[in-house]
Amino acid sequence: MALEGVMRPGHAQIRVLELDAAVHFYRDVLGLVETGRDASGRVYFKCWDERDHHSIVLREAESAGIDFLGFKVRDDATLDRFEAKLAEAGIATTSLPAGDLLETGRRVRFTLPSGHEIELYATKTSVGNGMPMVNPAPWNEQSETGIAPVRFDHALLYGPNIADVKRIFVDILGFYLVERVLGPDGETETALWLSCGQKVHDIAFVEHPEPGKLHHCSFLMDSWEKVLRAGDIMSKNEISVDIGPTRHGITRGCTIYAWDPSGNRFETFQGGYYPYPDYETITWTWDAFPQGLDYPQRKLHESFLSIVT
Amino acid sequence: MALEGVMRPGHAQIRVLELDAAVHFYRDVLGLVETGRDASGRVYFKCWDERDHHSIVLREAESAGIDFLGFKVRDDATLDRFEAKLAEAGIATTSLPAGDLLETGRRVRFTLPSGHEIELYATKTSVGNGMPMVNPAPWNEQSETGIAPVRFDHALLYGPNIADVKRIFVDILGFYLVERVLGPDGETETALWLSCGQKVHDIAFVEHPEPGKLHHCSFLMDSWEKVLRAGDIMSKNEISVDIGPTRHGITRGCTIYAWDPSGNRFETFQGGYYPYPDYETITWTWDAFPQGLDYPQRKLHESFLSIVT
Amino acid sequence: MALEGVMRPGHAQIRVLELDAAVHFYRDVLGLVETGRDASGRVYFKCWDERDHHSIVLREAESAGIDFLGFKVRDDATLDRFEAKLAEAGIATTSLPAGDLLETGRRVRFTLPSGHEIELYATKTSVGNGMPMVNPAPWNEQSETGIAPVRFDHALLYGPNIADVKRIFVDILGFYLVERVLGPDGETETALWLSCGQKVHDIAFVEHPEPGKLHHCSFLMDSWEKVLRAGDIMSKNEISVDIGPTRHGITRGCTIYAWDPSGNRFETFQGGYYPYPDYETITWTWDAFPQGLDYPQRKLHESFLSIVT
Amino acid sequence: MALEGVMRPGHAQIRVLELDAAVHFYRDVLGLVETGRDASGRVYFKCWDERDHHSIVLREAESAGIDFLGFKVRDDATLDRFEAKLAEAGIATTSLPAGDLLETGRRVRFTLPSGHEIELYATKTSVGNGMPMVNPAPWNEQSETGIAPVRFDHALLYGPNIADVKRIFVDILGFYLVERVLGPDGETETALWLSCGQKVHDIAFVEHPEPGKLHHCSFLMDSWEKVLRAGDIMSKNEISVDIGPTRHGITRGCTIYAWDPSGNRFETFQGGYYPYPDYETITWTWDAFPQGLDYPQRKLHESFLSIVT
Repeated sequence: MALEGVMRPGHAQIRVLELDAAVHFYRDVLGLVETGRDASGRVYFKCWDERDHHSIVLREAESAGIDFLGFKVRDDATLDRFEAKLAEAGIATTSLPAGDLLETGRRVRFTLPSGHEIELYATKTSVGNGMPMVNPAPWNEQSETGIAPVRFDHALLYGPNIADVKRIFVDILGFYLVERVLGPDGETETALWLSCGQKVHDIAFVEHPEPGKLHHCSFLMDSWEKVLRAGDIMSKNEISVDIGPTRHGITRGCTIYAWDPSGNRFETFQGGYYPYPDYETITWTWDAFPQGLDYPQRKLHESFLSIVT
Repeated sequence: MALEGVMRPGHAQIRVLELDAAVHFYRDVLGLVETGRDASGRVYFKCWDERDHHSIVLREAESAGIDFLGFKVRDDATLDRFEAKLAEAGIATTSLPAGDLLETGRRVRFTLPSGHEIELYATKTSVGNGMPMVNPAPWNEQSETGIAPVRFDHALLYGPNIADVKRIFVDILGFYLVERVLGPDGETETALWLSCGQKVHDIAFVEHPEPGKLHHCSFLMDSWEKVLRAGDIMSKNEISVDIGPTRHGITRGCTIYAWDPSGNRFETFQGGYYPYPDYETITWTWDAFPQGLDYPQRKLHESFLSIVT
Repeated sequence: MALEGVMRPGHAQIRVLELDAAVHFYRDVLGLVETGRDASGRVYFKCWDERDHHSIVLREAESAGIDFLGFKVRDDATLDRFEAKLAEAGIATTSLPAGDLLETGRRVRFTLPSGHEIELYATKTSVGNGMPMVNPAPWNEQSETGIAPVRFDHALLYGPNIADVKRIFVDILGFYLVERVLGPDGETETALWLSCGQKVHDIAFVEHPEPGKLHHCSFLMDSWEKVLRAGDIMSKNEISVDIGPTRHGITRGCTIYAWDPSGNRFETFQGGYYPYPDYETITWTWDAFPQGLDYPQRKLHESFLSIVT
Repeated sequence: MALEGVMRPGHAQIRVLELDAAVHFYRDVLGLVETGRDASGRVYFKCWDERDHHSIVLREAESAGIDFLGFKVRDDATLDRFEAKLAEAGIATTSLPAGDLLETGRRVRFTLPSGHEIELYATKTSVGNGMPMVNPAPWNEQSETGIAPVRFDHALLYGPNIADVKRIFVDILGFYLVERVLGPDGETETALWLSCGQKVHDIAFVEHPEPGKLHHCSFLMDSWEKVLRAGDIMSKNEISVDIGPTRHGITRGCTIYAWDPSGNRFETFQGGYYPYPDYETITWTWDAFPQGLDYPQRKLHESFLSIVT
């Protein structure tokens, strides 16, 4: 009771073109903590204040993008229950054995109508946040190494059929719709921000003809000053920035979007608000999407709508 | 599924010695939005970014303190379920009819072993945060009127038998223990921070011989700069400050404690982290309580342990 | 001794197309304090924390731009001395009588080789910053009314012959060159940031074929959070934003550029550093101008180089 | 012209009880950059964003305190002129040869009526701030190593006869009085904040019976968030904190006071405002000194008035 069912997005496996360059970026520039490498060559990372073994997994591949996004559920019984509910709804699931991802239990995977692979899992080894469980300091050196986000926060995915996707997240997985953008017809939901807790988004979708696309993985910073610092570090490392620093109207988050060396967009952001499932959904009309995206500039950056991996 | 059961502390009824002075303070200095007055003379307030009708209710009385603290649960079925579970556990409940508090549905009340009155309720009229549900700005004038906290965040209560209190919150109400302080014996839990969502505390308790005492109600600010601004406004209005600005080691929150004109302590704070129910509890030993309370100063302010209403 | 000679840019007279719309913008959106109107219809403003009678003067005209920029010097003797030095250097000066600008003493005006009118003056009535001279609070309501910059900080002017302009500011007026941009030839100074105190710029110039052009007047904010707030207020009021929020590499300032209703660009910025006259000038090469302008994005916004009034 | 005469406090020589412990503190905790050691065993430091060779010199001694405070003047001619003016005023001066302090030119030293040794000097080798003079980044790693203040900002000295001290700083050295505290008699100036540029204080004095005492050396931080970070680092290193984080009413600065391992108080602060010599002095009455010292708490911390080295 209280926070049940799905807790959070717990990992994303990202495809990168050159592993060494990617590891340098995610570890030394973005400032994630490397926590392991597996037999297949994948490299595992966590944000400094996360406690589970990893949240970002890099896999070298021919094309950039996201392999899958995994949500941690409350416990094994919950995992079994979701598996059954998905089957009931006619959604095929695959079970991946414990250990397929390092330090991670059994995963239940299914494909969204948008073409994305989603996983649920109940267990992953807690490795802590580098501080003791007794009398911890509020932060350590890891929090100042590179951009050093607090946590992997959410992903925005582009693909078709997001009305069906929404039904799966809301009806089966217990998410609620925090904000949405209506298309030019004033009716169709073309973008969705969904939460399973008190975050303004644990996952988001934009309607898009190509299936399975990644718009960005997002990382939480502690303050607007840390977002500025993130931008400075991007520039020092000649990371290509897409948008920001700026504030979104949608979610109120304060953000920079940039690209990793493989062309995967990522976000470092801060702020927003803390919704609850009894909150009425906020709606953005199509003509207001520019201020929804870039509140100060009220500008619809073309790259935001068109470039995905 | 996801955020179920108890969602949040939704209201506190606070006893004040002189209503007019209290209304001036809560409205003009703390910057809450007055939303109503009832036939019994109680005055209702909400924080600017809260959507439900009220979170703070003032009642004029001979002595300061807290009458009751109410938690909003997910829906009526949940309320019924909790009522049954409390009964099963041998905890007597009283049902207060809808409308007894303005714009609020039926409330189920019970007394904690610490002497505090706790309520559960499922419905309260949403009056919004003063901004439209379509294409809202990120903030409005209310967010700059007085101290203007974002939300009523939690309360810290002092009373006896907090081990029993913890069992009720964890076993029956589905909370989890985020942080705790052990007493000088190294075993007894003398202070508890409990969460029902992703906040570092939705309610907290300190073991104390007198039952039913209020240590403070707490209000969330958006940034450390807003905490400084809160302190400036307190000083301009000659509000008596207890501790801060400073950072807690416990919860990492950045805080000022002060007293309302009736002597009820309140907190304006910012920051901390975002826990989940699968997080291991952080423990503070008795000798480390000073840095737990005031991290920069490592000082055990005597008033914090002794002054309650 | 210590801070002598020229103290600061004390006023700019800005041409606006429609006075009422301009007054609304400068008073209600930018949040300057209106301090007077004169017989010729000019409207006078100051920033909340400035103490002299005005820093911005609006004049209704057929075209936007800047009429003149005035610097306050230490005292009358200093004014006389500068008048003599300018004459010695063969620069014609005009003397404007006390009272021509409200509450302002005699002004000595001359034309720069860049086509800009510059004035020196020694006296202007101090009206205070709205707080008492005995036991003042750190801020008052004016500091939260509109964008509410702390002070008029500097102006960036576009025009020809900036090498000659530099000689006048350095050799006659005692400024020093804080930062500069070299042109594509690696030798010619195409942009200059000049200081008469501890600011990274009291005035700046960019080489440009048209004489007498205004790039922007700049206003200082107290923090990066206040720059974000400025951007929010711009958006709420549908003010057209040019660049930002972002950080300049040049001067390190954190900034938003936008346009007033007449098309005059203005800047709200924060930060930078505190130079001294014994500091070596920082040089930016032409290829690095993009990160000099927009450090996170490393982008040479075309509008910045081309749009002036 | 412009910033002439005295430019800034350029160095302080501080007596420490154990050099190794002191070096560890100033380098690893306060985060100054060690720039040299001389034959007499003194250790030299600068703040990361300072360009001259050093600003803090540590000398091991039997008692803590300050040996001397040195101000950098505009050039050699200025130094000679001040030397002559001091002699004219009947103040004995000593000339210390170039090289007596590493990388520093001739120093002219004299004793204040308060018992403090003050020096003037015109030259010190510029070693830069660790970033190139061409296309520099806004900050580097040094700015995040330890507390890492931007600059040595000012010192507050306690001693007798501060009315005479004020005359020397104002009449001979060209400083101006920014703020002051009147004693209980409502007339006598018991505390003085003096500026030679645009800082709210380059030096400050409190009337005190013992001569030559150091209240604190002060270091500038870039933001209120960095002041909080400073407090966190103090706590991690078990540095004893005196006051703060809080805001001063006097100067509006946001501050933490703490003690180095030898018991010398130091300040890390941010903010305030930017005065000019034509500004009227702000006065604090004795009864308002509490909010002048600690604005949120309006509290006259006893240690602030009594503990000096």
